[in-house]
Amino acid sequence: MPIDPKRTVAELKELRSLTGDENGAQRVAFTPTWAKARKWLRSKVEGTGAEIHNDSAGNFWATLPGRSDKALLIGGHIDSVPNGGWLDGCLNTLAGVEILRRIKEQYKGEPPVTVRLVDWCDEEGARFGKSLFGSSACSGKIDMDETRGLKDKDGIRLVDAVKEHGIDFEKVKDSGKELRNAAAYIELHIEQGPVLLDLDLPLGTVLGTFGVERHAITFRGQAAHSGSTPMNRRRDAFLAAGKMGSAIYEIAKRSGQGVCTIGSCTTKPGIVTSVVEECRITLVQRHLDANALQQMLDEAKAASEKFAKEGNVDVAWERIWNIEPILFNNELIGMADAAIAETGAKPHRLPSGPLHDAAEVARAGVPTVMMFVQSLHGISHNKIEDTKEEHLELAVTAFDKLADKAIRWIAGRVD
Amino acid sequence: MPIDPKRTVAELKELRSLTGDENGAQRVAFTPTWAKARKWLRSKVEGTGAEIHNDSAGNFWATLPGRSDKALLIGGHIDSVPNGGWLDGCLNTLAGVEILRRIKEQYKGEPPVTVRLVDWCDEEGARFGKSLFGSSACSGKIDMDETRGLKDKDGIRLVDAVKEHGIDFEKVKDSGKELRNAAAYIELHIEQGPVLLDLDLPLGTVLGTFGVERHAITFRGQAAHSGSTPMNRRRDAFLAAGKMGSAIYEIAKRSGQGVCTIGSCTTKPGIVTSVVEECRITLVQRHLDANALQQMLDEAKAASEKFAKEGNVDVAWERIWNIEPILFNNELIGMADAAIAETGAKPHRLPSGPLHDAAEVARAGVPTVMMFVQSLHGISHNKIEDTKEEHLELAVTAFDKLADKAIRWIAGRVD
Repeated sequence: MPIDPKRTVAELKELRSLTGDENGAQRVAFTPTWAKARKWLRSKVEGTGAEIHNDSAGNFWATLPGRSDKALLIGGHIDSVPNGGWLDGCLNTLAGVEILRRIKEQYKGEPPVTVRLVDWCDEEGARFGKSLFGSSACSGKIDMDETRGLKDKDGIRLVDAVKEHGIDFEKVKDSGKELRNAAAYIELHIEQGPVLLDLDLPLGTVLGTFGVERHAITFRGQAAHSGSTPMNRRRDAFLAAGKMGSAIYEIAKRSGQGVCTIGSCTTKPGIVTSVVEECRITLVQRHLDANALQQMLDEAKAASEKFAKEGNVDVAWERIWNIEPILFNNELIGMADAAIAETGAKPHRLPSGPLHDAAEVARAGVPTVMMFVQSLHGISHNKIEDTKEEHLELAVTAFDKLADKAIRWIAGRVD
Repeated sequence: MPIDPKRTVAELKELRSLTGDENGAQRVAFTPTWAKARKWLRSKVEGTGAEIHNDSAGNFWATLPGRSDKALLIGGHIDSVPNGGWLDGCLNTLAGVEILRRIKEQYKGEPPVTVRLVDWCDEEGARFGKSLFGSSACSGKIDMDETRGLKDKDGIRLVDAVKEHGIDFEKVKDSGKELRNAAAYIELHIEQGPVLLDLDLPLGTVLGTFGVERHAITFRGQAAHSGSTPMNRRRDAFLAAGKMGSAIYEIAKRSGQGVCTIGSCTTKPGIVTSVVEECRITLVQRHLDANALQQMLDEAKAASEKFAKEGNVDVAWERIWNIEPILFNNELIGMADAAIAETGAKPHRLPSGPLHDAAEVARAGVPTVMMFVQSLHGISHNKIEDTKEEHLELAVTAFDKLADKAIRWIAGRVD
């Protein structure tokens, strides 16, 4: 009684027809289209006989009780960004539905451990600008004060929007009790980058999510007339900031797997006839290793100070946000590699740049791993997001093998 | 019967008291304070017995008729920027008044050639954003369509504002007839940069005004997630633009006396989590030599294309504005050097970065030269603008010697 990966692909297409348009997926959380997708999901899950409920944060849970209360959690999110791709998030959920079907069939009702599918509520944060709503509520890491103040572009408060979907914002953290018996969490996701594409590999095992350091760096020199000020008399803030553009590539290279990005640059006075007095750039640095991340940050600071000195300008750093690397579970990583190998694909381990619900579950202390499937253009959050159907089928097969190994692993620890 | 440079310094202070405040000079053209300064200037000039009138562009002319109609013009501008310096423009005019006095006295009414002082109308363009109003009207180079549309920050049209000061905008070019017999034009000005200060020289001879090339340079790459996109897969527009920051310093150095400035930088999407897709910088390049200016432009274009290729991004150039170098008259340059040397100061030749009324007169074909006096902080358009009094006195003395040489030169060509 194997799973049927072709059914998952067919269901993904069915969902696309139901909730997408010519611009892509439109399942933005807390909208009618999202509610329609959730209703459709419920109809699919009902066929498995699983117990279904929404928790206090709007996360959808489908539970197949096992001989042990210890549970394997399989996660995904059916919400999308506006004009999103057809796979981001819902591949995870629908692969989970297929696994529930297989388990129900195989064990005739009572698997050795409890198996639960969770469809997280508002992973993308597309409407209110804050991602991982449901999973961060569940992990208890949600910033209640910040989230309480969020409004969408029409001025509608998140607190009011979620109420329409049966969620009392002040109680969202009660969803944490869902993790009480969680013994492992697994999630399949389309890679939101081109690593597997470049390596010509269909699947990868995710080692964890990058730690992140986000800073604003401000160089301050002296405004001066662009005609009358000799080059060697200038205190040019853009000269120093521009050098950072190349420096971060060298820093990232030295770090191994880290990445650094300057995402914005603003200049004051910012007029054609004046040397730039103030230049502000934003820098985000990511690494899976906390020490390497710190090293990258130290090197960027040293570079900025060197360039400031060279150009006789000042430099100031301001931290915007940071998060530590979140490492996935070594034993589950091994199982994911083995599951991939059993499909005939070559295992490959890679970090995740973007955060995922899996990171929140891992932060809550649940052993976690993710599996990535190749993205054809290395692009997500876009209607052109795509994966070869043969890779989708391979992914569902490998992910099911991972679920099987995880169930045996949990059962082995219970006994 | 020598001139009295101390009187010029005293008159500058008198003007400062009359039309400045704790924030600096407030003689913005077409304002009551400017009109007050003009009235004060007229009272000073009346003592010389010169014929006085305003031309159709609001330029103030004071004429001492000579045996020849051929005229030496001495120029300045009594208008200032808001919160301006106490010397910029009015030093020129008041030095001219002192020279008129000396000539009237020396020749008892009829110098060998006609000598005329002109106080240009709205050199700064502070209120309507377009400089050299009176002198460009006189040279015939004014852009009538552009200037006709100008408004100040309160929405008042230039056309209406100048009418209150007796100027019919549609007739401003009639002022060109004032140049009919112009045989030479000389102007003294505070240097608006630190060159003479750095060389510890009180005075300099100006070779001309820089030619200028202003361009917007837009690099276009690909927006991509700052976490999931490996460094070697990026098409980062900021990386390429940032390299221009250093390149222009090398280009300016190779050019000799040229200067290059990147005055602004904007990024799109300009968010912390995305690689920069589009980066637009503005570049202004200046050189006194037209070929060298073209070479600097060519080198900047080549550099931008090299950086674009290295980063797999596109680059496009858009010209915002340009003007050719305006070279002053070689014989008058020699006379200015000699005049400076006769005061005991060391002659030094330098180009002018900012444009001046003198450039408009030179464009109209009148042999022209300027003399600069050292600026204590290398700063102008600011209340801290200053020059040592001994340097001011030396400047008036040297400038008078230049006027004397120019009169003899014109007379020699007439005879």
